[in-house]
Amino acid sequence: MSDTPRPVFPHRHLLGIEGLSALDLTALLDLADEQVEVSRQVEKKKSTLRGRTQINLFFEPSTRTQSSFEIAGKRLGADVMNMSVASSSVKKGETLVDTAATLNAMRPDLIIVRHHAAGAVHLLAQKVDCSVVNAGDGAHEHPTQALLDALTIRRNKGGIEGLTVAICGDIVHSRVARSNMLLLATLGARVRLVAPSTLLPPGIEGLGFETFTDMRRGLDGADIVMMLRLQRERMNGSFVPSTKEYFRFYGLDQEKLSWAKPDALVMHPGPMNRGVEISSEVADGAQSLIREQVEMGVAVRMAVLEALASHLPNR
Amino acid sequence: MSDTPRPVFPHRHLLGIEGLSALDLTALLDLADEQVEVSRQVEKKKSTLRGRTQINLFFEPSTRTQSSFEIAGKRLGADVMNMSVASSSVKKGETLVDTAATLNAMRPDLIIVRHHAAGAVHLLAQKVDCSVVNAGDGAHEHPTQALLDALTIRRNKGGIEGLTVAICGDIVHSRVARSNMLLLATLGARVRLVAPSTLLPPGIEGLGFETFTDMRRGLDGADIVMMLRLQRERMNGSFVPSTKEYFRFYGLDQEKLSWAKPDALVMHPGPMNRGVEISSEVADGAQSLIREQVEMGVAVRMAVLEALASHLPNR
Amino acid sequence: MSDTPRPVFPHRHLLGIEGLSALDLTALLDLADEQVEVSRQVEKKKSTLRGRTQINLFFEPSTRTQSSFEIAGKRLGADVMNMSVASSSVKKGETLVDTAATLNAMRPDLIIVRHHAAGAVHLLAQKVDCSVVNAGDGAHEHPTQALLDALTIRRNKGGIEGLTVAICGDIVHSRVARSNMLLLATLGARVRLVAPSTLLPPGIEGLGFETFTDMRRGLDGADIVMMLRLQRERMNGSFVPSTKEYFRFYGLDQEKLSWAKPDALVMHPGPMNRGVEISSEVADGAQSLIREQVEMGVAVRMAVLEALASHLPNR
Repeated sequence: MSDTPRPVFPHRHLLGIEGLSALDLTALLDLADEQVEVSRQVEKKKSTLRGRTQINLFFEPSTRTQSSFEIAGKRLGADVMNMSVASSSVKKGETLVDTAATLNAMRPDLIIVRHHAAGAVHLLAQKVDCSVVNAGDGAHEHPTQALLDALTIRRNKGGIEGLTVAICGDIVHSRVARSNMLLLATLGARVRLVAPSTLLPPGIEGLGFETFTDMRRGLDGADIVMMLRLQRERMNGSFVPSTKEYFRFYGLDQEKLSWAKPDALVMHPGPMNRGVEISSEVADGAQSLIREQVEMGVAVRMAVLEALASHLPNR
Repeated sequence: MSDTPRPVFPHRHLLGIEGLSALDLTALLDLADEQVEVSRQVEKKKSTLRGRTQINLFFEPSTRTQSSFEIAGKRLGADVMNMSVASSSVKKGETLVDTAATLNAMRPDLIIVRHHAAGAVHLLAQKVDCSVVNAGDGAHEHPTQALLDALTIRRNKGGIEGLTVAICGDIVHSRVARSNMLLLATLGARVRLVAPSTLLPPGIEGLGFETFTDMRRGLDGADIVMMLRLQRERMNGSFVPSTKEYFRFYGLDQEKLSWAKPDALVMHPGPMNRGVEISSEVADGAQSLIREQVEMGVAVRMAVLEALASHLPNR
Repeated sequence: MSDTPRPVFPHRHLLGIEGLSALDLTALLDLADEQVEVSRQVEKKKSTLRGRTQINLFFEPSTRTQSSFEIAGKRLGADVMNMSVASSSVKKGETLVDTAATLNAMRPDLIIVRHHAAGAVHLLAQKVDCSVVNAGDGAHEHPTQALLDALTIRRNKGGIEGLTVAICGDIVHSRVARSNMLLLATLGARVRLVAPSTLLPPGIEGLGFETFTDMRRGLDGADIVMMLRLQRERMNGSFVPSTKEYFRFYGLDQEKLSWAKPDALVMHPGPMNRGVEISSEVADGAQSLIREQVEMGVAVRMAVLEALASHLPNR
């Protein structure tokens, strides 16, 4: 296969941003930049993964992430198989480890996993011979989301180093926030966390991130305002804010956005709660990168699939 | 791509039969005639949609329509992705418009949509850059069903102009009836509507369609008897006929069929309620085209996909 | 298509092991042996089913069987379409026969069916023009499972004739047991059935199978110990054993396994109830073939698909 790319990423799995170097991240982003053009052609098709088997194993449903991985794999020529919980043996009481071993015996090349429990993806990766990609595990990590966010920022701002990025909202429940914090810090951005104190991870200040409970102060001077989905479904009774109150203090509207830099750009991983964490005016406005994030999601996933597949040539 | 067909259909979307000319319809039917042979080969494969991405976005389940579009797309070489409501972000409260924008950012070429609300498909088409095909929206339109019915009639009767077509049964709830009425009238057939008065759309007589509440009179002289599924699930308490009564007066059995022309042909869009709107004897009899309709469904959808894709060469 | 294999299997369908000769079975196993290597390549792809349409019609969910057929079909180059009950017209009351006729009209080459009712797959096969594969029908047959078990045994023991195979556990509810009994007897193995009397099929002794209610006696001298899943979901109140009691008397642990031959090998069709019919120690131990069975499942299904497709060249 002459068009197999050179190894750019010296890891068998992509389980999280944690542990990746700036060099690793930059290599993936550079490869993703090349992939963007593929999806802009009439014939959106490469053959780098021809004859490879990709399994999308989703224990939680997800429109955009699963679709994005499916389209990415198909555009690279892979055979893609979707497995959702509803149609799986999990119902019959099979353990995650048995599911992993079963899939592994079918000799896939890539397994993309979303699971509701933090750590489930790492466990699965230990049990298989192929490459595993974490597509979101509990409140832990969602590395391809952080990569696509970084790609979007880099293409719009020319780089990441030195930028001030404000991550705002339901940070404590967010794997997106966690992966972004790790990635952005590694690539030299200044990361701020802006949220009510109940939605900030305990002890986060000690890890070098600036925290703010006041939006005005948190957004002051920000280059990027990254809003998070309010995940009411993950809140166990203790503190569930009213959406009206929440929007008043933490929802990004045009007024609050004016507190950031004049050329600040707005991001959201979706799906959005319009009128809760973000106003429609801002979401659909000129400073919004939200649609571009989705496009970059396909490119980043193509890059990750290709990078992982490239150093498994002779297993 | 040298085998991309010439543009035959000067519209970006297929949202309904309404607004299409006889020339438009005939072009699609002619193209569909060519596609019939593809599925009769051992190797049922063309490459006209190679590298194109087709998304089947079904907010209502449907065996035959979704399968037919999926098989059509795959036989043309497209990458086909199914998205059903159960596995979509709609559960998380995302709006239809956000779903559309998200899918659009993944740069599909074709989105096939079924939705329970009339008009939802038009709304979606306004928000995307690719071609949209209406696979059924509420009680509004189902254009590919009307096209496959027309193809089936044309292949069996040599043409459509001048034929008398009796559409019978639950007309008021039927998008199939509506699309067929529009198409058949445009191609010069004489369309009759035969149903109990409660299942006829109010004011329909004023639009040039003959209506009958008596099956004998309605079928007298008909070349085509097109039965409709009794959609009890769409009836809101007001008038739900007993199936036994309904069959007695409006169910097509051999006796009632004898009231039409001796060479009349019988159609049904499926799935059938045997013993409700049609007897098994008629459904499986020599005058039935019901199976052929399904085969023509694949051919018509191949034609529509190919026609729409052909004039998006440089987006 | 120069790489279409020679006809090796003179039947249009694979509905069960019943009625197949030793020659038929050996031909499929030989073909499967060749397919094993395909999945061990980097590029796991053949083109023998290019342009063929395979429909996986599953009325019961199943991780491993449906996945295995899907991967098998895709590795052979077929267009594969999954249809699960949840998204099918069965909800709208369509009969199995109408579903079959509808699918048939779309001109598939292969339909793979799993159904909860014994005999449903035979009925469906009578209504279609293409090849049908039984992927499990009620408590009746599951022929590809028996073939993959035979392939696994043959590759590990050099042959099947003369081996003593103990099938243990919930035999009365098991289509896997039934297909295996038929296949192993045809290929000359000595088949023992080991189970509590309530889980043995009535009258089975008269058919030439040795039965045992005592595990020690049943396993004595066995070359292969084939455990079955305890299907509590198929037990209608009458006799549902406590899992603790069951494991004590019939669960395969290291001690009970020591009663078989020293080189005995352990099998299980999955999904396993660990601690019910088998201990984790045995399931994951050195004598276990359980993972290899799954790998052989893909190879056997590739062989079946290719064999059936090979003698439908000019329909």
